[in-house]
Amino acid sequence: MTKLRVHSFGMSLDGYSAGTDQSLENPLGVRGPEIMDWFFPTRVFCQMHGAGDGETGRDNAMAERGFEGIGAWILGRNMFGPIRGPWPDENWKGWWGEEPPYHVPAFVLTHYPRPPLVMAGGTTFHFVTDGIQSALAQARAAAGDRDVRLGGGVATVREYLREGLIDELHLAVRPVLLGAGESLFQGLDMRALGYEAVDHVAGERAMHVFIRRKQD
Amino acid sequence: MTKLRVHSFGMSLDGYSAGTDQSLENPLGVRGPEIMDWFFPTRVFCQMHGAGDGETGRDNAMAERGFEGIGAWILGRNMFGPIRGPWPDENWKGWWGEEPPYHVPAFVLTHYPRPPLVMAGGTTFHFVTDGIQSALAQARAAAGDRDVRLGGGVATVREYLREGLIDELHLAVRPVLLGAGESLFQGLDMRALGYEAVDHVAGERAMHVFIRRKQD
Repeated sequence: MTKLRVHSFGMSLDGYSAGTDQSLENPLGVRGPEIMDWFFPTRVFCQMHGAGDGETGRDNAMAERGFEGIGAWILGRNMFGPIRGPWPDENWKGWWGEEPPYHVPAFVLTHYPRPPLVMAGGTTFHFVTDGIQSALAQARAAAGDRDVRLGGGVATVREYLREGLIDELHLAVRPVLLGAGESLFQGLDMRALGYEAVDHVAGERAMHVFIRRKQD
Repeated sequence: MTKLRVHSFGMSLDGYSAGTDQSLENPLGVRGPEIMDWFFPTRVFCQMHGAGDGETGRDNAMAERGFEGIGAWILGRNMFGPIRGPWPDENWKGWWGEEPPYHVPAFVLTHYPRPPLVMAGGTTFHFVTDGIQSALAQARAAAGDRDVRLGGGVATVREYLREGLIDELHLAVRPVLLGAGESLFQGLDMRALGYEAVDHVAGERAMHVFIRRKQD
């Protein structure tokens, strides 16, 4: 069976994986970028966004792992955009411009149907209105013998964790205090859900921890 | 002004600094030792407990810092023992045997008075019944020009944080999931309280983060 994987998921010392008040100006919420400030300097990120060479240290090596063997993505609604409620029109095409960094089918969880959106570079956004299990089934089918990557956001990762559907979670713990935001683990008993930390790597700007679900 | 410092305070990925159900058998709560399993192999810990030489890497260097320039300790009641309510007698003398590892005056927060307890090796336990501010004032007076170290436990550290009384907090983030326990930061807005992470060091078994309170 192929895997559902989460990669490069940032978390502050006080347990937040996003700031408060996501908006067009603050896609990661207020102060959210501090959580991802290990990723922005990497070669993976810089090349993705045409921002020069970037660094090639351990943080970059950890980020690279997240793109290996991925055949489809799942994204929560907020990860696709700041719009809430029904789509006002079809103008919003994600945070990433004409060529999003996925290059494979990406399944967006939403309560509001919308036709598939074909973007440059191989990404097609499919809008899934019948829940997380359906999105996973569709993404698995699209990915074939490759794995599915769950991009986020926090609420979506928590939903999949609660159902025990995530096989691997790569967490990047950042040495920052956010003060407020969306908590990743609060109220989730990760041990009872079958998860354990199996490896850790000290990056330049984060501690990378690899969490797996024990096989039943 | 001398400082109030917390050192070598362990925290799991899911934010717990102690397990549930502290008892005589589980001084750190159920699975609590996993949080401190970076400290146990160090030379600092091993020599303290007559358990051989111990390791001398980065984790040990971080642990050593916690004993430099300390003139008094403050301990929460649970850190002194598992007894709740009034002292049944004076037989309980702490978790550590005849010679506790403090070697300076140690002020124990409790609601129940008890005469000072002089132990071997320089530690005297003083029992403080009039609150955290009083304990700090007494510890500062005893420490002279040296700093005061707050040992714990979690509830006590949270009380002092909430009042902005801790100047430095050395957190050791362990790559483990506890699932349940006493959360260190939940419900505390550390940014609003004036704290920021100023440095981090990758140890062998934990990420060490140094948190300071900005000067008003």
